[in-house]
Amino acid sequence: MSKYCFGVDVGGTTVKMGLFSIDGELLDNWEIVTRTENAGVHIVPDIAASILDKIAEKSMAREDIAGVGIGVPGPVDENGIVYKTANTGWGVFNLKKELEDLLDMNVKTGNDANVAALGEMWKGGAQGYQNVVLVTLGTGVGGGIIINGRILTGATGAGGEIGHMHIQDGESEQCGCGNHGCLEQYASATGVVRLANRKLAACDKPSVLRTGEISAKAVFDAVKSGDALAIEIIEEFGEYLGKGLALVGGVCNPEVFVLGGGVSKAGTILIDYVQKYYQKYVFNGSREAKFTLATLGNSAGIYGAAKMVL
Amino acid sequence: MSKYCFGVDVGGTTVKMGLFSIDGELLDNWEIVTRTENAGVHIVPDIAASILDKIAEKSMAREDIAGVGIGVPGPVDENGIVYKTANTGWGVFNLKKELEDLLDMNVKTGNDANVAALGEMWKGGAQGYQNVVLVTLGTGVGGGIIINGRILTGATGAGGEIGHMHIQDGESEQCGCGNHGCLEQYASATGVVRLANRKLAACDKPSVLRTGEISAKAVFDAVKSGDALAIEIIEEFGEYLGKGLALVGGVCNPEVFVLGGGVSKAGTILIDYVQKYYQKYVFNGSREAKFTLATLGNSAGIYGAAKMVL
Repeated sequence: MSKYCFGVDVGGTTVKMGLFSIDGELLDNWEIVTRTENAGVHIVPDIAASILDKIAEKSMAREDIAGVGIGVPGPVDENGIVYKTANTGWGVFNLKKELEDLLDMNVKTGNDANVAALGEMWKGGAQGYQNVVLVTLGTGVGGGIIINGRILTGATGAGGEIGHMHIQDGESEQCGCGNHGCLEQYASATGVVRLANRKLAACDKPSVLRTGEISAKAVFDAVKSGDALAIEIIEEFGEYLGKGLALVGGVCNPEVFVLGGGVSKAGTILIDYVQKYYQKYVFNGSREAKFTLATLGNSAGIYGAAKMVL
Repeated sequence: MSKYCFGVDVGGTTVKMGLFSIDGELLDNWEIVTRTENAGVHIVPDIAASILDKIAEKSMAREDIAGVGIGVPGPVDENGIVYKTANTGWGVFNLKKELEDLLDMNVKTGNDANVAALGEMWKGGAQGYQNVVLVTLGTGVGGGIIINGRILTGATGAGGEIGHMHIQDGESEQCGCGNHGCLEQYASATGVVRLANRKLAACDKPSVLRTGEISAKAVFDAVKSGDALAIEIIEEFGEYLGKGLALVGGVCNPEVFVLGGGVSKAGTILIDYVQKYYQKYVFNGSREAKFTLATLGNSAGIYGAAKMVL
């Protein structure tokens, strides 16, 4: 009977790592630098070395370790094959096999957003649920979908990529993905700024937002202080995001949507605006879905990664 | 080792039934009338009696029967609980338990569209795939989603209800579900007629469609004969459906979309128009999805129902 497992969350700057008990207690956590040079060839050996160091440091027996879960910032399929990951420099290779060979341990792989959803289900905002959609509202919009307790990976690891659903016709600006009118263009932190700048330019109503730097936080703070123009902006934001999640809801019929990422620091006011428009657009059968905030922050990835091996 | 199983597909007029070998050969099929009176109380006993009759007729041993799968035209959850089904008169009850008690056999339940998707995966247009979206283009638009070989049921049995995704702002007509701008309003057989009538009213271009009755078949036939206005109509239809499936593709990243239902009798020309707009709107990571036509027709339901018990 194993006692421990490791959760690894690979980012473009650092690799976050955690040692967990098999019932989900985070016993230790640390970071190493992500060495992206030379197409990221050092990253996997660095991770393996760090895990072996930790095992030695803690005098752990190998048979007490259930395995290592690892989340990566890009598509990865059910077999552990990574399909190019811009932030790490990686091309196409079998991450699972490479790490298993280095560690002689069971390794499970997943996309970071999907893995974070699993973490929130296990120990975060979606505890007790089995059908979960995690929506990460950061610089972009990421998503992770859990169906009956399992990650929806999809055919090529692109399952849950809700940020690039086409949500608006006639958008003139191009999304980072090359398309026009993606959810991410309106519902991310940069999307809130885009909506704010457009609204400010389109009218001359007074607003605290007309002085100082525009950020998603500044707009939500202005909403909380009752600024009428900021409220208009966040109504628009809420309609885009609520409509987008209504589409996801109609397809997946989740029990709960978990809102995470930097924008979610706005708090429960975010849920108020999103849920209002979710209810407007969603199919009856998926209307009962709950909305909650993510609670694990940047640690969701290591929790979910660890959960994959259990 | 079991040798046989039954597949049952409950419709509002008839219940389709099939006897299968466990490797998927349809050995016998028949129908009984769906008695919807008195809140449909006779339906489940009628099904049980018909199965017991068939077992007696074929002199089958009970231990040779793996069980009975049953698809119903409404939401049904993982536990077999049906949540009101307009076409049958049913309220809320445990279908699985009731049929198991009557038959003393293993029973599996599912929504008819989801079950049909499983049938197409097992023996129809999606053979060899494990991540499948079945799109049924009939009077309405139905959907069934298979992830890793398993039906995406969702929290309350509403998974895969893609016909009611909000796809168009500003629609004045109301959908049967109560919302406005659902995919079903444009991509069903009645949707094609709606688009055709609107196009014919909005311009005075010549078209064979200006004489005779407008139907989805008539519009597709006109496209095949090179009618310019019909082509405009089906371009519009293709854009709605392609955009809708691009949303599903971004969420689920399937290997294949299977197009079924009456509208799919138009043939491969349907795929040409849908795939063109799917490619326009979908996220890169889900661009490789294939499109194919359903091959089991009205039998997809009994195939999928049977597959559930295997």
